[in-house]
Amino acid sequence: MMKTISQNKSFGGQQGVYSHESTETGCTMRFGVYLPPAAEKGPVPVLFWLSGLTCTEENFIVKAGAQRMASELGIAIITPDTSPRGLNYPGDADSYDFGVGAGFYVDATESPWSDGYRMYSYITKELFDLIANGFAVDAARAGIFGHSMGGHGALTIGLKNPDQFKTISAFSPIVSPTRCPWGEKALAGYLGSDRASWADYDATLLIQKHGWSGPELLVDQGTADQFLQEQLKPELLTAACNEANVPLNLRMQPGYDHSYFFIATFIEDHLRHHAAHL
Amino acid sequence: MMKTISQNKSFGGQQGVYSHESTETGCTMRFGVYLPPAAEKGPVPVLFWLSGLTCTEENFIVKAGAQRMASELGIAIITPDTSPRGLNYPGDADSYDFGVGAGFYVDATESPWSDGYRMYSYITKELFDLIANGFAVDAARAGIFGHSMGGHGALTIGLKNPDQFKTISAFSPIVSPTRCPWGEKALAGYLGSDRASWADYDATLLIQKHGWSGPELLVDQGTADQFLQEQLKPELLTAACNEANVPLNLRMQPGYDHSYFFIATFIEDHLRHHAAHL
Repeated sequence: MMKTISQNKSFGGQQGVYSHESTETGCTMRFGVYLPPAAEKGPVPVLFWLSGLTCTEENFIVKAGAQRMASELGIAIITPDTSPRGLNYPGDADSYDFGVGAGFYVDATESPWSDGYRMYSYITKELFDLIANGFAVDAARAGIFGHSMGGHGALTIGLKNPDQFKTISAFSPIVSPTRCPWGEKALAGYLGSDRASWADYDATLLIQKHGWSGPELLVDQGTADQFLQEQLKPELLTAACNEANVPLNLRMQPGYDHSYFFIATFIEDHLRHHAAHL
Repeated sequence: MMKTISQNKSFGGQQGVYSHESTETGCTMRFGVYLPPAAEKGPVPVLFWLSGLTCTEENFIVKAGAQRMASELGIAIITPDTSPRGLNYPGDADSYDFGVGAGFYVDATESPWSDGYRMYSYITKELFDLIANGFAVDAARAGIFGHSMGGHGALTIGLKNPDQFKTISAFSPIVSPTRCPWGEKALAGYLGSDRASWADYDATLLIQKHGWSGPELLVDQGTADQFLQEQLKPELLTAACNEANVPLNLRMQPGYDHSYFFIATFIEDHLRHHAAHL
């Protein structure tokens, strides 16, 4: 069952960290839940935040400064971890961009990863249900957002599940993992060498295939981001959205980098965006 | 000379981390500098934030969420480290409340600590001058604030240097280190067993001796703080201020603990307090 790791009062609400034994990943998973004061009176809308490479559930909680506006707007924020931990598959801790801390929000099909690296099903089913049933949230009003690898996760999960996630936004997302080194390494490792199987985890290809009839996609991208040109390539998202007639608000933010200082600066805009549509 | 460790754009301004070779401490010291956008046009008021036990210059920078309001108000924030590091005195890393990470903002007189544990002079002279001369701040408009051990540091340094620091505030401060276990251990270790020498580093005794003619002291204290009764004792500050006719705004915040979640919740009020008087 669920175990409480910590609970801290924050902006009148409560920032909690919990753990549970996950069926999907086969290990103990941690996640954060921020509940605004409004949750004491009834279910509130809920946002799932997906973090980037190397992060745990903790980074967003302590660095993004999101609780202030979540409190004001009356929105809960769920922060999952970024991969299974403690499975100790051979080589799972050898690199920062594959294995531990780098689940890429896919359901792996290659051995041994296919056993526990099921972050797609973990987020969309197991954790979603746990949150919906265990906390004062209205799961019918859910949105999803994230950063970098987690921006990829938010876009792909949201685009594939428009009935489950009504709003999507991202910071510095990997918009097309089939066309950048981080993504090619991860998708080949988790899904194998047949690139056809990768298409289901590429936001630009999903937009071409499914479109998106929800509110505009809000994406912030720093122009001083060291990963901009080689890994993130927001121009590919622009092209896909243009072609599929999907509304995109891509904001190139001058001088900002890939860090949480960037996220903290614009997190209020993202929370307001989700709140306005949930 | 000063070395740049990192610089990140944050809320239109810049969060920097720098290091320098300190004469006072005899080692390399790191510190943070947040410069708001207004600093591009001319010198801005400056706040010195003193952190608590175990902290480095980084905790406040990443956890307090202060840059947003510092940007809006046009105030710089300086975040020193909490002790010398790398001196490797015998036993300096044996406990969390003495030695490394626990300088208590005193000038030690006991050997070996007296060589490098000179955080009082480091903050008030060496770092202050470095900031005044090296960054776009108006050192004539300086305030000081801090948390726990750093709240003690802010109160004692501010009270002794009213011409240098015009405004003082604190979160969960150790208000009387001569009358709590943390303080008694630290002051005995750094200053020796003669308690008469401790008085110069006790905010309640300094208020009795010098008073304070500046703006009211703003102090926030969580009621769920695990250190409240044994270590922090805000009632001793209330008594000293009442006796000396010093204006104190002590706010007991229901349900808040000793963490940065508490600090982040009320940091805006503190920044507005300093800005209003600088």
